[in-house]
Formats: sequence, structure tokens, C-alpha cells
Amino acid sequence: MSEPRYDVLGIGNAIVDVIARADEDFLVAHGMNKGGMALIDEDRAEAIYRAMGSGVEISGGSAANTIVGCASFGARAAFVGKVKNDELGNIFARDIRAAKVAFETPAAKDGPSTARSYILVTPDGERTMNTYLGAAQNLYADDIDPRLIADAAITYLEGYLWDPSHAKEAFKKAAKAAHDAKRMVALTLSDAFCVDRYRDEFIQLVRSKTVDLLFANEAELHSLYQTSDFDGAIAALQKDCRLAVVTRSEKGCVVVSPNGIEAIPAFPVARVVDTTGAGDLFAAGFLFGLARNKDHHVCARLAALAAAEVIQHIGARPESSLQALAAQHGLI
Amino acid sequence: MSEPRYDVLGIGNAIVDVIARADEDFLVAHGMNKGGMALIDEDRAEAIYRAMGSGVEISGGSAANTIVGCASFGARAAFVGKVKNDELGNIFARDIRAAKVAFETPAAKDGPSTARSYILVTPDGERTMNTYLGAAQNLYADDIDPRLIADAAITYLEGYLWDPSHAKEAFKKAAKAAHDAKRMVALTLSDAFCVDRYRDEFIQLVRSKTVDLLFANEAELHSLYQTSDFDGAIAALQKDCRLAVVTRSEKGCVVVSPNGIEAIPAFPVARVVDTTGAGDLFAAGFLFGLARNKDHHVCARLAALAAAEVIQHIGARPESSLQALAAQHGLI
Repeated sequence: MSEPRYDVLGIGNAIVDVIARADEDFLVAHGMNKGGMALIDEDRAEAIYRAMGSGVEISGGSAANTIVGCASFGARAAFVGKVKNDELGNIFARDIRAAKVAFETPAAKDGPSTARSYILVTPDGERTMNTYLGAAQNLYADDIDPRLIADAAITYLEGYLWDPSHAKEAFKKAAKAAHDAKRMVALTLSDAFCVDRYRDEFIQLVRSKTVDLLFANEAELHSLYQTSDFDGAIAALQKDCRLAVVTRSEKGCVVVSPNGIEAIPAFPVARVVDTTGAGDLFAAGFLFGLARNKDHHVCARLAALAAAEVIQHIGARPESSLQALAAQHGLI
Repeated sequence: MSEPRYDVLGIGNAIVDVIARADEDFLVAHGMNKGGMALIDEDRAEAIYRAMGSGVEISGGSAANTIVGCASFGARAAFVGKVKNDELGNIFARDIRAAKVAFETPAAKDGPSTARSYILVTPDGERTMNTYLGAAQNLYADDIDPRLIADAAITYLEGYLWDPSHAKEAFKKAAKAAHDAKRMVALTLSDAFCVDRYRDEFIQLVRSKTVDLLFANEAELHSLYQTSDFDGAIAALQKDCRLAVVTRSEKGCVVVSPNGIEAIPAFPVARVVDTTGAGDLFAAGFLFGLARNKDHHVCARLAALAAAEVIQHIGARPESSLQALAAQHGLI
């Protein structure tokens, strides 16, 4: 097995976020599930955009945020995802490249416009997402180059890829290419409602060892095993997974492997401004640590550090160098 | 004189900001004047955009930021400025309307694209701007409706309007319409380099009383009177102006009128994140106070409060309700 060219390669929906503040009443009035991600069609996208307050446009996408986080730690990183050749698509492509991430997926010349997610941040810092998938719907297996996948130590996939109708074929092709090259495959469950849509397929991915490392938050874990019993769900996870990390917001995370279960605390933060990207950046720290052969405890500390950075400002990508932060805390 | 429909109406360049972090070396390498605003052509815009780090897109424009700030205080507000009917233009129009500002200037159907400003924020929080004027160049006197101007207690204009070649005619038409209706005209000098480009015309505007209220920061004041002697410049200002406010960053501001000179301190802030919009929001607080017949001391406190809010986060528009903040501090 040759030395990989990339530490981490991510595959996900290429999305531009429009982040705005909203109060709880707004979510209720528009029938939104607080804290969740809902898929919306163009008409509803229009209606929400008209009704919401003024916002900030910023490149997003769950796996894309994670990969940018990895690059900020100093990882060699790449991303695969579909935008259209329009103004928002150009913004997405430029931002991810400016973050020193290799991004070569050709932009669509026609069809729906670049995906966007309207993210409403309530006064408690919680975010509620409404995503119009647009061009991201047209990510196909043909967009996956097996040589590129073989060249990455870890391929990281988002559960949201089950939503665009063809992307799961891209997902499966990438996972096979990674394992054929003896590389690692990681998956995030993305969202409790997404798990609800594809529960059986996600459980199958884990049990068949198509996935070597699983990321989930508590809500996703409970949705996966349809239980409100946390310890029971962790026990099921330990049986099903090679390695899993469950995030619990301010309570930190739990690393689950056949060797045991370890709880690691969160980093304290002065004020939570916007939780958008907390899970994405958590994954970034853990993946970076793994790619650099750190033990799971250090991986989880790097993960917690990155999550703490991103929830203290608006937007789902780091504003400070995570490499510098990690060095400050003696983690690298 | 009938009761005006608007408290404040702003006329300015309609710009979308792209804000990114940069170090001092980047500014030096690209020949930028730290803290200033440079006009750039399309080629240089391309080159800077390619070289700078990943950014956040957010509606901007100096007078537009001020007017959004006025609306956040609860003022009835309107804005006049030119975008193109493109994706960034749609973002600008939606954001300003979402902030409850009346904005009816028709978007250009062809010609250059919506104006953008690449704003580099250095680690000390200072911002350096590079603006491609694009569609903002096509603001004409015909875009000014004298009835709209007559319906606003204060018309607020930015010195930057001297840069697009036709906009100064729009400026003069608006100032005349305001005075014909016995309304007030305010001007910000915008930027020291802008003052350098149009010094004689700006001095003429003030001495001819085309302008009733002038906003300037220290650098702009020194540039206007071509002196490094602060007290001398203030004395000249007192002779030339009906009312002027000079901002001095963390040293607060000085209100200058024929009746006297009063210094008012800045609001203390925990951490300066990004000074973009500090002057714009300062003007918002002062204009709102004036429109509500507050005395100059209270106007300056409202101004300082708004400036303090905006420098504690990225972006030049308030993230919190300025009305709520002002109430908390007993200013309204």
C-alpha cells in the first residue's frame, strides 16, 4: 500500500448556506422541526427565503465543512460534490479551494441551480435547516474517480447522500474503491430525520462493515436503533461497529469500539452563538487525528476543540486556524 | 411641513461584501493601503478574489449599512442604490428589504454585475476594502424621486457617491429636493482616500451648507483640511459646518457645532473582531437619535452603542436588535 496523497477525502452535497436569526415563533409558524434538516422544493425555498430575516451567505454542506476543517488542521484534503456553474456555485468552488482543499468535480452546465440551505438560528444558538438540493441532486457514480479515492487515507461520506436519488450509487462506488485500496471509510448519520428516512440501509452499511467509522449524535443514535435508552443504543453500536463516536453536545462524546467505551468531555465555551457546523467540525478533528495516527482519546480532544471553535461564531467553517489552536492546546 | 413618512433615507453604492481574514503580509504583497477603500477594476477584482482566503458573502455598502442600522433601532427607513438583476443583486435587495427598509430602485437588466467589495480583515480587527463598483456606476439623477426625498426627515449621503461618474448628479438632486422640502441633509466623508480624490468638492458642499450634518473619522478630517493638527482641524470644521461628528475609534467621538465642542466616550467592548461597518453603524445611531429629536449627547451615545455592536462580530450590519440594546442602556 503506497503512501496516500490525501489524508481525508469527503463526498457530500455541495451547498451554500444562507444563515439568518429567527425566533422560535418563526419556526412554529413555518412548521419547522427545530434542530433538524428538512428537504424543501423550489416553491417552499422561495417562500421561506421571502419570509426569513436578512442573512449571511457562506459556503456550507456537511461533509464539505468537515473537509475544510481537516484542511484547517493541516490535513491534505479533497472534496467531491456537485454545484452548478452559477454565482453560488462559483462561491462554493472558490471558498473550498481557498481553504486549500482539492475540488475537481465539474460544475453542471444546466439543470437546477446550486443547492442552498436556509439556516435559521434561534436565540439559544440552535440551528434549523431547510435545504433545496438543486444541482446536488445530480451527483452520479460517474463523478467518482476510484484512483482519487484510493489516494486518500480516509474517505468520509455523509448520510445526506441518501437524499439525492443517484448519489448513493456514488457513495457505494467510493466505499468499494476505498476498501479495494485498503483505505478507511467513515460515515456520519447527518440528521435524525435523515436516519428515519433510510434507517435499514444505514444499519446495513454498518453491519456489513461497508463503514469502518461511524459518527452520530444522540438524536441520530436513538433514531437509528429506535430507542430512547442511551446505554442500550451504545451497546448495540458496540456490537455493530468497528469504531463509532457519539456526540452529546455540551456533555462531550463517547468513543465506542470493541475494546471499550470512553467518554471525553467537551471544551468549555464562553457563549454559544450558532451551533451550525458543530457536528461537522467535530468529525474534522477526529478524522484529522486518525489520519495522523493519534490515539482515540487525542482524536476526540481535537474533535471537541474544533466543535468549540465553530459554535462561537456564525457559520459552519472555522474562522481561526485549527492547526494553531491544536498546537496551543498541546494536541499536535 | 407635513409629517415625513421616513425618518432616514440613504443614498449610496449598493454593494455585496466578501469578507475574509488575511494577514498583514497579504496586504503588503498586494499593495493595499491598510484601513482604506481602494477602487478596483474587473481584472484586479478577479486577481484579488483568486488570491484571498475563503469568505463570507454579506450585503454591505456604507450608506446601506447605516440605513439598516437605523431600521434596527426602529426608524422608518428607505434606501436608494443600484444593483444588477443578478444573484448578488437579488441577495442585496432581499437583505435590505428583510431588514424592513423600503428599497424600490429598479435593478439594471444589463451592463456590469452587482458591485462587490473584497474586505480583508487583519488579526487586529482592522478592515481593508477593495471595491469593484459594477452596476453601482449606473446610478443616475433619474433614479432620484424628489417626492420620496421630501418624505424623509433626513437624507443621508455617502462621499463614495463621488466615485461613480453620474452619481454626484443624483446626490445634488437629492440634496436640493430635501432642502426644498425643509428636510435635513447629512453626509459621511466615507474614506480618507476618497476625501483626497474629491477634497475641494467636499469642502464646497460643507461651506455652501448643501450639507447640514457631516460625519468624518480622524483620518478623513485630516485629509479634508490637509493637516495633522487635530484641534486645528476641529476649529476649521466648527467654522464650516452647522453640525459635525468626528469619530476617533476607541477614543469615542467629538460633536462639533457653533454652540460648542463635546467629547463623548466609546462603549467598551470585550474583543474587536472586525471593524467593518463601525463608522456606518455609528452614523445610524446618531441619525436615529436626531430623527427622534434626542439631544446631541444622546445621539452620540446611540451612535457609540451601534458601533460597539457591529465590531464584535464579522459583517457590517447588526446581528442584534439595536432597539433592544438601546432600551437596555436606557437610551430610548
